[in-house]
Amino acid sequence: MMNRRVILKSRPVGIAQATDFSIEEIPTEPLRDGEVRITNQFLSVDPAMRGWIADAGNYSDPVPIGGVMRSLAVGTVIESRCDAFRKDDVVLGWFGWQQIATVGSQAIVRRVNESDLSPSLALGVLGINGVTALLALTLVGEPKEGDTLVVSTAAGSVGSAVGQIGRMLGCRAVGITGGPQKVANCLDHFGYDAAIDYKAGNLDEALAQACPDGVDVYFDNTSGPVSDAVLPLLALGARVVNCGTAAIDRWDPWPTGPRVERHLLVKRARMQGFVVFDHMDRWDASVARLAQWVREGKLRYFEEVLDGLEACPDALAGLYRGENIGKRIIRL
Amino acid sequence: MMNRRVILKSRPVGIAQATDFSIEEIPTEPLRDGEVRITNQFLSVDPAMRGWIADAGNYSDPVPIGGVMRSLAVGTVIESRCDAFRKDDVVLGWFGWQQIATVGSQAIVRRVNESDLSPSLALGVLGINGVTALLALTLVGEPKEGDTLVVSTAAGSVGSAVGQIGRMLGCRAVGITGGPQKVANCLDHFGYDAAIDYKAGNLDEALAQACPDGVDVYFDNTSGPVSDAVLPLLALGARVVNCGTAAIDRWDPWPTGPRVERHLLVKRARMQGFVVFDHMDRWDASVARLAQWVREGKLRYFEEVLDGLEACPDALAGLYRGENIGKRIIRL
Repeated sequence: MMNRRVILKSRPVGIAQATDFSIEEIPTEPLRDGEVRITNQFLSVDPAMRGWIADAGNYSDPVPIGGVMRSLAVGTVIESRCDAFRKDDVVLGWFGWQQIATVGSQAIVRRVNESDLSPSLALGVLGINGVTALLALTLVGEPKEGDTLVVSTAAGSVGSAVGQIGRMLGCRAVGITGGPQKVANCLDHFGYDAAIDYKAGNLDEALAQACPDGVDVYFDNTSGPVSDAVLPLLALGARVVNCGTAAIDRWDPWPTGPRVERHLLVKRARMQGFVVFDHMDRWDASVARLAQWVREGKLRYFEEVLDGLEACPDALAGLYRGENIGKRIIRL
Repeated sequence: MMNRRVILKSRPVGIAQATDFSIEEIPTEPLRDGEVRITNQFLSVDPAMRGWIADAGNYSDPVPIGGVMRSLAVGTVIESRCDAFRKDDVVLGWFGWQQIATVGSQAIVRRVNESDLSPSLALGVLGINGVTALLALTLVGEPKEGDTLVVSTAAGSVGSAVGQIGRMLGCRAVGITGGPQKVANCLDHFGYDAAIDYKAGNLDEALAQACPDGVDVYFDNTSGPVSDAVLPLLALGARVVNCGTAAIDRWDPWPTGPRVERHLLVKRARMQGFVVFDHMDRWDASVARLAQWVREGKLRYFEEVLDGLEACPDALAGLYRGENIGKRIIRL
């Protein structure tokens, strides 16, 4: 059986471009004891992938040069030599950007049981994005009834879930996003109480107006000028969730910004980093909660589906060009 | 009865100098119902005073121009029209830089009962410094047995208590301080496991050597280059306590530094500000615990006593010149 897969060809400086990847075709190996073979149906494209292939310090070892690009994927078991999984099981796991994955059972995150919903959702609103939003917001952001919650990349697949979950938990949600179309999505589709276009200028003023009582929870995916505008508005006892650094192109040389310490001291506020993979034990319960909200129409999402393995190499760079609306997925 | 007092004459830009204060003599007013009159014995001099007189955002309203300089002090009640206090009580409170304070009972923090210890300690190791060290370290730093604890301004009145308390709680304590004398004090007097002179150069290297397993708790009083050297060494799940910003001369224009977000994200670490005055309900219990350690010889301190109200105006600037060793106190 032949497998086609996307290989990391060179270690990118800054954002990985299409030319940093190549597609190769090789025969699959015979299945060994304990292994499972999966045909991938949907591959995930995530901003965090930039960190997974960078040399700079991260929370996981970098993808090796010549290795298959790491990613979550949803697929169907076609052959199993592992008792826990059988043929035709639909599974989510670390299957990589390839057509056929041959993995040990530890690579499988869960069986996808929501037969009434598209299996692709297991990569987005019922996957890394939704689970990140739910757990980072509740565990680190600790939102309380009546809090003002500000979300950067508010129309994105994590941010949009954060805003909606925050509102369900009693917060007033203020989204920051780029461009009038995304502002409209925030207001009309995701139900933010207010939405700000950071590209329109006057961010400081717009934020002050949208947050007259200060910011109790700031959910950040950017680590850049948007954050620098939010931090002076923190309320007493505020919580800042550091969930991503999308605004920073490269960390070498290390970028500078306004010092945060005085804001944290004066406001007795905290900033804390969150990585969803520390909380795999909560994955299933989180998905169940998110799926229920999706069924009830309370948790909305955008999905953008690209077709074919050929779409992979440029898919990550495209995220950083801001061209996607919602969760980007490759359908095989 | 005449009172002499230190008045804030002008709003300083940067560190308050002697010329920003003046001393005046005025008669006391008759005591009103509910008030207490106190003769001050010891006045406190604290780095945080810089914030109390600055226009920039802080956690308390700034001392008004022409107002008595705000400070904690220890004194003896000489007259009382308040049931809770009587003549000859020794009390700690917000009595200001003056000889005689006439205050309502809400200005009194506590009755000083440690008759076996100098009442001046109520301003330092048994006061704002010791209580800050104990509560900020335990409530925000959350030290665990075996943790590596790094302390900036390690020989100072807060820092030295943090290092000693940290060791009592099972941490390995690494102090950062300026100059060989303070390094020697850290090692010989305060019992740090290691001490680093940040003025000697090679701070990065010295820190890496002193913290081979990374930094679990960083107790910071500086918010400057010392912190910038510590943050890349944070261990997984590290806690950073923002307790002061002594390294920053002024916040206008707002200073920049290396961005902290990626450290916090990759290490799932947190930074959090602490102001001791949020925790007045724990003051008495904290003092009791600290006093016991002092009696047992487990909590050591340096006290530097200056004489007379005339020493006040330059006393704060002197702190920032780094000329003091230990807690600076004015004796009247």
